[in-house]
Amino acid sequence: MVPHPYSALATLFALAVFLWTLALVSRARKRCGIAAPACTGSEEFERVFRVQMNTLEQLVLLLPVLWLCAVWVGELYAGLGGLVWSIGRIIYVVSYLKNPKSRSIGFILTIAPTFTMLVADLVFILKFMLG
Amino acid sequence: MVPHPYSALATLFALAVFLWTLALVSRARKRCGIAAPACTGSEEFERVFRVQMNTLEQLVLLLPVLWLCAVWVGELYAGLGGLVWSIGRIIYVVSYLKNPKSRSIGFILTIAPTFTMLVADLVFILKFMLG
Amino acid sequence: MVPHPYSALATLFALAVFLWTLALVSRARKRCGIAAPACTGSEEFERVFRVQMNTLEQLVLLLPVLWLCAVWVGELYAGLGGLVWSIGRIIYVVSYLKNPKSRSIGFILTIAPTFTMLVADLVFILKFMLG
Repeated sequence: MVPHPYSALATLFALAVFLWTLALVSRARKRCGIAAPACTGSEEFERVFRVQMNTLEQLVLLLPVLWLCAVWVGELYAGLGGLVWSIGRIIYVVSYLKNPKSRSIGFILTIAPTFTMLVADLVFILKFMLG
Repeated sequence: MVPHPYSALATLFALAVFLWTLALVSRARKRCGIAAPACTGSEEFERVFRVQMNTLEQLVLLLPVLWLCAVWVGELYAGLGGLVWSIGRIIYVVSYLKNPKSRSIGFILTIAPTFTMLVADLVFILKFMLG
Repeated sequence: MVPHPYSALATLFALAVFLWTLALVSRARKRCGIAAPACTGSEEFERVFRVQMNTLEQLVLLLPVLWLCAVWVGELYAGLGGLVWSIGRIIYVVSYLKNPKSRSIGFILTIAPTFTMLVADLVFILKFMLG
């Protein structure tokens, strides 16, 4: 068994946040009367839908850099990066749904751990290859 | 070589199902006369497009829980979970394209293995950390 | 430490290409005056948005086949496959933004390494299981 429990927990937490945005879309469909396959026609629905799509995009960035971080940098840093990401994402979702223009803080808290881990991964891999 | 052949096969099967939905969108573009970058303007096209997007969302949930399951719970369970997911997804695609309202059974067969593996992963990781 | 430096570098390169498409969407929002959550209303914006979405779809296909290739086929092949993918994707983005109809070469250079690795993964896994 590969002992990466913090990275694994952080992964599950991030997936749970994404599942939550899927549930929000499902509920918004009913509330706003937008039957599948339509995704437009109500500003309120489009807001929830964009939140979900943006979370999908950010999740696809997070998971690879998190696991490269677990293997190359350190398991605890990966767990911490994933934790900050998930908290930032929750703030993003809540603030975006109130007002799309207030989404900056939550967005920065999502992209900052991703970007930090990406750079750290790169540094540790290049260090390994060059020495 | 890490011996997870069933998880690996299940991953390739799920990716093949997703590739199939991409091909369906590509063919629907021509049939419905929707030239890129447009994604709306034909209910038939939007249906195929939603099927592909939903499969993408579910795939991004499946793969991490499947591989955590392979490592933490058991390789055979992960392979089985992925197999049920792919069969459920095929049912989802076929029934959604006939009638979006009939998509429930296929959707449940997709989300059930994902959810079951997510909970099993969590239980096994917490068990490891607590004892 | 699992010694897959080429696969890891290729992964980071592909993620950087995806990050670039996210930045293109962000800039196009301002230039075309499309405020979130809207994703339609300007052909120029829709083009950039489709490029990003298509890159997301292809990235979700690439990363699993690349890592299965690293483990089952060979680390160098995985790194090479990822490199071709990223170069193909850059060509795709640049040519799509000029003219959506000229996207074929870049698209083929993206899908070819994905498809080749998928088939190679399958062959090596089946060989292992059958012998």
